[in-house]
Amino acid sequence: MMADKLLDAIDKKQNPCVVGLDPVIERLPKHLINGDSLKDIAGAYRTFNFEIIDAVADLVPAVKPQVAFYEKYGFEGLKTFKDTVDYARSKGLIVIEDGKRNDIGSTSQAYADGHLGRVGTISSKVPSLDLDLLTVNPYLGSDGLNPFVDVCKRYEKGIFILVKTSNPSSGDLQDRLIEINDDEKDELRQLGLDVKNNITEMYNLVALQVNRYAQGLIGKRGYSSIGAVVGATYPAQAETLRKIMPNSIFLVPGYGAQGGNAKDLTNCFNDGGYGAVVNSSRGIIFAYEKSNNPTAFAEAARTAVKSMIEDICSALSKCNKLNYDKKNVLARE
Amino acid sequence: MMADKLLDAIDKKQNPCVVGLDPVIERLPKHLINGDSLKDIAGAYRTFNFEIIDAVADLVPAVKPQVAFYEKYGFEGLKTFKDTVDYARSKGLIVIEDGKRNDIGSTSQAYADGHLGRVGTISSKVPSLDLDLLTVNPYLGSDGLNPFVDVCKRYEKGIFILVKTSNPSSGDLQDRLIEINDDEKDELRQLGLDVKNNITEMYNLVALQVNRYAQGLIGKRGYSSIGAVVGATYPAQAETLRKIMPNSIFLVPGYGAQGGNAKDLTNCFNDGGYGAVVNSSRGIIFAYEKSNNPTAFAEAARTAVKSMIEDICSALSKCNKLNYDKKNVLARE
Repeated sequence: MMADKLLDAIDKKQNPCVVGLDPVIERLPKHLINGDSLKDIAGAYRTFNFEIIDAVADLVPAVKPQVAFYEKYGFEGLKTFKDTVDYARSKGLIVIEDGKRNDIGSTSQAYADGHLGRVGTISSKVPSLDLDLLTVNPYLGSDGLNPFVDVCKRYEKGIFILVKTSNPSSGDLQDRLIEINDDEKDELRQLGLDVKNNITEMYNLVALQVNRYAQGLIGKRGYSSIGAVVGATYPAQAETLRKIMPNSIFLVPGYGAQGGNAKDLTNCFNDGGYGAVVNSSRGIIFAYEKSNNPTAFAEAARTAVKSMIEDICSALSKCNKLNYDKKNVLARE
Repeated sequence: MMADKLLDAIDKKQNPCVVGLDPVIERLPKHLINGDSLKDIAGAYRTFNFEIIDAVADLVPAVKPQVAFYEKYGFEGLKTFKDTVDYARSKGLIVIEDGKRNDIGSTSQAYADGHLGRVGTISSKVPSLDLDLLTVNPYLGSDGLNPFVDVCKRYEKGIFILVKTSNPSSGDLQDRLIEINDDEKDELRQLGLDVKNNITEMYNLVALQVNRYAQGLIGKRGYSSIGAVVGATYPAQAETLRKIMPNSIFLVPGYGAQGGNAKDLTNCFNDGGYGAVVNSSRGIIFAYEKSNNPTAFAEAARTAVKSMIEDICSALSKCNKLNYDKKNVLARE
């Protein structure tokens, strides 16, 4: 079960931090770039990512490449994406693809098969992009989500469904007050939410749907492989969402560059330091810019990861949420 | 302006039909497949698509490849996707990518640049996937949509924002009754919608946001390059949405295989046969299955397209919505 693997990795590294691998050509150390074609850019991204991975693999449980930054450069970019996924996994890292994929049933099935499961050839089914976890958009409803959930069951993979995203305009739709029916109201109340007059914010309804899916994929350690994206920038909402999705792991973007701080995002966690993983992308991979030393970009990333771990774990410790299971790790190794 | 180009293409072909290029290995004519690797599958898709394009290019204004079916096979699949896009454009077709992309600001920018605009290299900005139009998901709000709209302005491209999708569960979120403010209520009323008590279905709010974007990108012929996805399977909603987005072109999926019929989808059109393009994928590209003659798959697709055109145009004619501008085409050619 992917949720168990992720928790074991958190135990092993004794922190819930994720490094976002989001290369941007304008901010890449210049010495890595050997030419001007899309292939050259994709090649520079590969070198950059591999060195970052080497520098952080012993520190964090997972990395999160954002596929937009790769497919931007066409198939050469997607090749680097796949090489990055494979390299990170060879270094013992769990790989979360930030792809926010979604569509109607049969097309969602294609995304689920390609990104997480297996794809058909003439004689068999084989892994393709073969990620561990993928972010998924819920706007098309259950028949767009079901294929992802099915693939998670079948191949021991995981997804994070977008519930409350970290961006400033996430409220345009997600915060809207919507009408819910009596069953939904009762379910939300049972989960500890104070709902009046059959009205609640839309993100609470999406969270309820995530929780329903989550109950079907709970691992040995009590967490589900069906998780949620909850932005670090919305701590009050995170507190509510933690109640509605007690068994889901939150993927928390928005720490660092987007303005979310460590204290705010402790609401995403349960006791023991579990229940969430926190991503930082630009604050880590472009940390070298502060010292203006491009050749030492990987060391700068390593230093930045250590600071992030200290920051997050210190904040968790202050609210008594830091208590990783060391024995559990040793027993499983 | 992309909206003008699309309307000119509709005039030229005298119909609003789009062929969806969604290959599926299990349904591909066996003689096209020369091996079992991902590259072999992607190669078979390329041959298949090129023959379909050759067979329909003189009949329809546009094709719509669904990128999920290509990226499913990794970078080899994405290479076929790009080759398909380029080949279709070389045959004078407008190419709509069904990608339903979305993310927060900086990442949406990467999607917009890569799929529609230009991407940075060291010395310049160059086209990458370079589609004409792209479908986009609105769940993350305005800062996720703005980069796409900006790229449409800058490079004369277009988008279709998901409003009411064709799938059975699209109502899970899209049909929810939500609270809107007085300004939104007034705006919706001015557009002819009967709104009471500051409550409406969510798709109406999304449509209102689409209309706001649309007003900034209206071409010479009165239509905007910011369009909407409205499923053929929801004719009543289409009638309402046609009012809220008077200048937007609708991309209408769900005809044929998904159960939408020609009469139902006439609500998506304005007078003159404009205001919508109708997609059919499986019903066209796998039409050969009915005659069980795999080697004649392209001819079968051509025959199926002709039937579709006749069906749609006949339905439009019956409600006096068929009156394409022939003079306009000749003047521009």
